[in-house]
Parts: sequence; C-alpha cells; structure tokens
Amino acid sequence: MLQPPSYADVVAASARIAGHAHRTPVMTSRTADAESGARLFFKCENLQRMGAFKFRGAFNALSCFDAAQRKAGVVAFSSGNHAQAVALSARLLGMPATIIMPHDAPAAKVAATRGYGGQVVLYDRYTEDREAIGKRLAQEQGLTLIPPYDHPHVIAGQGTAVKELIEESGPLDALFVCLGGGGLLSGSALAARALSPGIKIYGVEPQAGNDGQQSFRSGAIVHIDTPHTIADGAQTQHLGQYTFDIIRREVDDILTVSDEELVECMRFFAARMKIVVEPTGCLGFAAARKLQAQLRGKRVGVVLSGGNIDMARFCQLLAE
Amino acid sequence: MLQPPSYADVVAASARIAGHAHRTPVMTSRTADAESGARLFFKCENLQRMGAFKFRGAFNALSCFDAAQRKAGVVAFSSGNHAQAVALSARLLGMPATIIMPHDAPAAKVAATRGYGGQVVLYDRYTEDREAIGKRLAQEQGLTLIPPYDHPHVIAGQGTAVKELIEESGPLDALFVCLGGGGLLSGSALAARALSPGIKIYGVEPQAGNDGQQSFRSGAIVHIDTPHTIADGAQTQHLGQYTFDIIRREVDDILTVSDEELVECMRFFAARMKIVVEPTGCLGFAAARKLQAQLRGKRVGVVLSGGNIDMARFCQLLAE
Repeated sequence: MLQPPSYADVVAASARIAGHAHRTPVMTSRTADAESGARLFFKCENLQRMGAFKFRGAFNALSCFDAAQRKAGVVAFSSGNHAQAVALSARLLGMPATIIMPHDAPAAKVAATRGYGGQVVLYDRYTEDREAIGKRLAQEQGLTLIPPYDHPHVIAGQGTAVKELIEESGPLDALFVCLGGGGLLSGSALAARALSPGIKIYGVEPQAGNDGQQSFRSGAIVHIDTPHTIADGAQTQHLGQYTFDIIRREVDDILTVSDEELVECMRFFAARMKIVVEPTGCLGFAAARKLQAQLRGKRVGVVLSGGNIDMARFCQLLAE
Repeated sequence: MLQPPSYADVVAASARIAGHAHRTPVMTSRTADAESGARLFFKCENLQRMGAFKFRGAFNALSCFDAAQRKAGVVAFSSGNHAQAVALSARLLGMPATIIMPHDAPAAKVAATRGYGGQVVLYDRYTEDREAIGKRLAQEQGLTLIPPYDHPHVIAGQGTAVKELIEESGPLDALFVCLGGGGLLSGSALAARALSPGIKIYGVEPQAGNDGQQSFRSGAIVHIDTPHTIADGAQTQHLGQYTFDIIRREVDDILTVSDEELVECMRFFAARMKIVVEPTGCLGFAAARKLQAQLRGKRVGVVLSGGNIDMARFCQLLAE
C-alpha cells in the first residue's frame, strides 16, 4: 500500500508532466463576472491533451514506474478517457500498455486507444469483471495496474491543474471541482489547501449520482447503482479509499446540480466564452451559479475538467 | 487624409490597447499538425473581448481622438461586430457613441450595442444610405466617423493580433488571414512583414465573394454584389483604398475556399480543439488545409478572427 499523497507529491508531479501535458489557459469572462458578481477563474482542462485532465494523472503514475515495471508495462481498465491517457502516456514513456475495454465500447474509442499503441483486451461487461481481468493480467504478465482514480500518483497528477490555476490567479476564496471517483477533487484539494489555505473547496456531483455527497455526510463510502445523468464522467458508483480520506479532510462540502443546469452552462461556455465543455466539465460552474449570493465579491476558481463530447450529442443537448 | 499606417503604428496601437483588449492565446494542436505535416499556430481572436478582433481596431482608433473629438463623440455604421466594438470602446474611453444600424438588425445586436451605452440610430437599408446618414450626423453634430476597416488607426489596431502571434510563435514561414474589407489582413501584413520578413502572407475569401482576389490580380479595386456565403464577416463588396494599397504591396496571394470547407473546419475546431469559431474565422485554416503539400515542414500562422455565431445556427451548419 502506497502512502497517501500530499502537496509535495503534486509539486513532484508538476515537474514530471512539464513539457508533456499542456499548461492549459486560465480563462476569465467579464460576462460571467457581471452575472455572478464574483471574479471567476476557469481552468480549461478541456484544452488539455486528449481533451481532459486525465492525461496528468496517468502520465505522472507511469513516470513513477521503476525499470522493471517499465519493461513489463502497464494495464488499465476504462471505457473513457483514462484508457487513452494511459495508452498515450505509455507510448511517450516507451513502455507497453494493455487496456481492458468493454466489447461494446464505441469503435472510435477503441481505435483511438490502439492508435496510441495500446493493446486492447475486450471483455463482456455483462458477464465478466474487468477488475478481475486486470488483476489476472497484472499477475500473469507482471504488469502494473493503474486504476482510474484511487491511486496516490494519479491523484497527485490531477492536482497539478489547480496548482497551475492558483499560481496564475493568485489566492482564491472558493474552488469548484467536479466529482466522479474523486481523483481530480482530492488532488485539487491538496493543491488548493497548500496554496490558498483559507479557501472553501466544493466538490460537485450530478443530482442523480450523489454517492460522494452521501459518503461525505455519513462518513463512510456509499455505493450506488450507475446513475442516469448526462455527466458521463461522473457516473462512478463510489469514491476510492485514498480519494475519500482526502475529501473528508480537505473539502468543505459536496453539492449537486441537475442535468438541465449542466446544459445551461454548456450553452454559456459555447455562446459566450467560445469553448466546448462536456457535461461533466460543467459541474463546477453550475454549482457556483447556484451559490451566487454567497460568492458576491469573491475570487472563485472553477475547473473545467474536459471537452470530450461528440458534436452531434452536443447539438442535441443544446437543442433541448 | 491620414497617412497610411506602418508597422510603427501597429506597435503604438499595441501600447494603447494593452490592458483593454485581451492578449488572446495562441493555440496549437498535435492533431492538426499530424494531419497537415506543418507546425500550426492558431491566434484565437474568437476569445477576444466581444468574441472578435474588431475591438482592437475600434479601441485604437478612438484612443487617437483629441480632446475636442472625445467631447463630441464617435459615429459608426455597422450591422455587425464593429458597431459593438465602437460602442464598448467609447464607453471605456468615456465618450458618446452613435451607432447607425439597419432597422431590421437582430434585436440582440441592437440591445447589445445599447447595453454598451451606444445611442442607436436605425435606418431603412432598402431606402436609405448609411454612409450618407453617418456623414450628415458627423457634420451636424461634429462627430468623428470611424469606418469598419478603411482607416489607418483601425488597420494598425487589427495588426496587433499578428504582432502578438509572432512574438509568441517565433518566425513563421506562412500566414493565413481571412479577408473581408481588408482591415485585419492589411494590419496583419504590416506586422508579419516586419517581424518575419520572408513570410508568405495569404488572404482568404469565400469563393462566392472573391472581390479581393479579383482586385489583387487586376490591380484595381473590384466591386461585387453582396455575396451569398456563410462567412458573414466577409460579405463586403469591395476593399478600401488604404487596405488595398497595403495588400497589393505586402500580400503574396489571395485564395478562396467553399462554404463546405468552412463547415469542415468549424467541426474540427469544435470536436478536436474544443473551441467555437464562426465561419469567417475558419477561412484561414480552410485555405491552409488546401495548400497542405506546400506547407509540409513549415511553421504556419493562422488567425481565427472570431467566434460570434448563434448556437442554433452553429448546430444547424454542423448537422448539414
């Protein structure tokens, strides 16, 4: 069992990813400021390599491998961005990658993962357990398994986005971060608490999938069924042990927003700020809008986690 | 008659707009580079204040007013971004602004112009001449008329975008800039020729409205009917005298692209780079794609002029 990550690990991760991950822009919007009465700083991870923050954690985790681990390679399971982040990081670091994906994953995602040089192992999501497959492959072939969020090096890597944000914005009064498995939120909390100690840190979930809020308030990790929400990056069923411990200690509250509120934010980002943000990436801003009265006059950071959404789907959501 | 602008005027404009206009990001895309074989640098004026480069020229022009001119105020005619750019610049500089707009202009644009504090004068575009109205108001009330492109201070202001681009990218082999009335292209050409002397400079028009290409090749300003194209920022009927003289001297060629090619670029920007670019803003990239064979291995600048497009229209174009 690895030690839980600290801010020092975020700093070390920053050095490792430098020159590989983009240092994404921090955008501001006079319109958003005028509407909210706050001063908003948007950290644009939708403009990150591969369109999401996931590359930070994956690259950091793989960079920490020793020589034997590098030689044998990495294994990961994911139907989403983590798979591609691991495959791309492995290629950049010159090691083999095996990615376990559901047999009904979108062909484009399978192709993209293979395009990054990853060896794809397909499984039947109705009859097979991807974690068991991952563990078996790890054991049989000596591969190192990198989970999508509950890993100290993944968490530390994700924290680099908020480190960059606060270095650029200066001290903040509040921070809003989307919450799925908690990798981004826990890493962000480590960075925010170190760089802006008095900051209020909020995790934000879709209303339909508030396992994080339930866990935070009850003090134990709550498991739920896969929630129905357009925020597909937050369809996780439970927090991890590393992420939960950090969230309990550092985060001030977990908030929820509706899918309709996410669509309103997507529209605002596209129409007014000219950027494409996926529904999950809108969680933070949607919650900040709801807390408007409390945030008047404050300096507020918002992490836009990603922009990976099919354009047909994007237009379908905006048309509703 | 004012002196034609030189690069020194672009430098002076840079100092005037600093702190008022955004220094917009220069984006790069590994995907675009891999597809084209070139190294592309996108200057994101879609992320400029008001969503387009127009603010640069308007603010610079109004900043050059003397005390008497400031007191009396500015008059401008435009159905597009120039109106709002002048109204906003006037407010920031504390002077009155009168904006002449067609009576059937979109209500949102009229409201936005009034929102910036501009006094809107509506005219009937089928029976009245906006230039005549502008000149009359200028004479009667002592206002200073600032045209949308054919003015040395407007041209110098627009040139600041490419000055910033090359300061960030380093020397370039080629530059692609959209062409309507020529304010952006001529200003860009002044900056590019000064900062990267051997650069090839291309202006890009919609196929349906190639008056600039005709003018460039014939050596005299050609007038055309308002062209039918989705690139509404390039629906001008003719170049101006200042802009034409600079374009003839500094620009290497004028290229054209189809509306379908613009839509393909809009899709690429949204899906891969996560940014919203209006059709006119896609002209430069669409032409660069067509010249791919010549650009292999080169360092290429592309100006994305703006991102002002209604989301319903955006989705309609992408669905076609």
